[in-house]
Amino acid sequence: MASYDFAAQRLYVEEALAAGADVVLEGSQANYLKNVLRLAEGDQVLLFNGRDGEWRSRLSAIAKRRVTLVAEELVRPQQNAGDLWYVFAPLKHARLDYMVEKAVEMGASRLMPVFTRRTQASRVNGERMRANAIEAAEQCGILNVPGIAEPAPLEKVLDAWPPERTMIFCDEDAGAASAVETLAQAKPAGPLAVLVGPEGGFDESERARLLRLPSVVRLSLGPRILRADTAAVAALTVVQAVLGDWTAPVT
Amino acid sequence: MASYDFAAQRLYVEEALAAGADVVLEGSQANYLKNVLRLAEGDQVLLFNGRDGEWRSRLSAIAKRRVTLVAEELVRPQQNAGDLWYVFAPLKHARLDYMVEKAVEMGASRLMPVFTRRTQASRVNGERMRANAIEAAEQCGILNVPGIAEPAPLEKVLDAWPPERTMIFCDEDAGAASAVETLAQAKPAGPLAVLVGPEGGFDESERARLLRLPSVVRLSLGPRILRADTAAVAALTVVQAVLGDWTAPVT
Repeated sequence: MASYDFAAQRLYVEEALAAGADVVLEGSQANYLKNVLRLAEGDQVLLFNGRDGEWRSRLSAIAKRRVTLVAEELVRPQQNAGDLWYVFAPLKHARLDYMVEKAVEMGASRLMPVFTRRTQASRVNGERMRANAIEAAEQCGILNVPGIAEPAPLEKVLDAWPPERTMIFCDEDAGAASAVETLAQAKPAGPLAVLVGPEGGFDESERARLLRLPSVVRLSLGPRILRADTAAVAALTVVQAVLGDWTAPVT
Repeated sequence: MASYDFAAQRLYVEEALAAGADVVLEGSQANYLKNVLRLAEGDQVLLFNGRDGEWRSRLSAIAKRRVTLVAEELVRPQQNAGDLWYVFAPLKHARLDYMVEKAVEMGASRLMPVFTRRTQASRVNGERMRANAIEAAEQCGILNVPGIAEPAPLEKVLDAWPPERTMIFCDEDAGAASAVETLAQAKPAGPLAVLVGPEGGFDESERARLLRLPSVVRLSLGPRILRADTAAVAALTVVQAVLGDWTAPVT
């Protein structure tokens, strides 16, 4: 939880950012700056695009349907994105919005919705997930917006699973093992993915398939039932805290 | 994430529960059973009251304004509640609902809203917090509904702080220390509390006051900014995982 100015207006843009670069916004982004934030020429916002870092930028022209900004100063260089896939059974509506937001805050680098036997949601809105991911990045000062995979059946995703990537499989039947010790003992060498299933969990054939992956760790998320959106944050927390980017040495 | 039947209907009641005890529900609970769930005489629900465990119960009579159930079988004995206070700057509206729900799922035994300098919400609705806590317990199979303290200024809460209780103080200025190592090294002997502040964090005088508590641990929640409702789940996860009830030995 590094210190960060929550009040600063941050906006994700697609355009390249460099000193002196003009960024022309139209549509909803222009409307947001003009009519929601009521910014005027000369006002500052922070722009980022997931590639070129975060730029202090100034509104240089406001026209009827477009707003032009000029990038002035690099305030934070682009960081290397972590490499942590978050694989999840999609939830419905507000809880999916929430889960996407939380996964971004927790540092997931790729969001992968998978349909399992007990998944309740039958469709997912990829654009809405993308908008939620961008909003979370804007609000929480995250410079890397995770990619979002096309929703796919779990089996298909597992059939194409990269063998070097360890699947950390949150399993309600994993028993009472300590999550911290489980992860510390496993200490996978390669990249990681975290899988959180639907409420109701995985069925036996799914569990068996998961356990046949070349590298898999079954993780217990404690003694209580967690809703899937809570499990998302809890699982990513314990993984980041034991194996991920929370593990800076004690200072 | 123990296995649990999400489909079962669970209802929190105030009444004592014992074999053969009648439980008479009126008002919104009677309405819920009759008109939302559309249960009929003979149908089963699970009842708990935070004291007597969870009872398989049967609807024995449905009248115009009341529903009578009879407790038949104790299906889960009352567990000892953990002892983990969750102290937090209240958020507004839906995010407060969410934070209360998540704190219950993560095993907080007492919820304590505190007003800090940068707290945005100026009032909190205690009844709504209580309703959210009960709903989370009902949905997630938690037999202990946390108590909810009267909202109070942080200073007042700290002036009356029990000296044997360690405050785990989530501090955006705690530096890059590993959360797991920080907690494992501190290893407090007595009961714990977790404090999550408002977005924007604590001011210097609040931080100084917190660090004068007899037993306090400053905890870093990783390198990213977290919204306060995310910080709630993340902080309770890492505390439960390292010091709390997730720490069963590896089996």
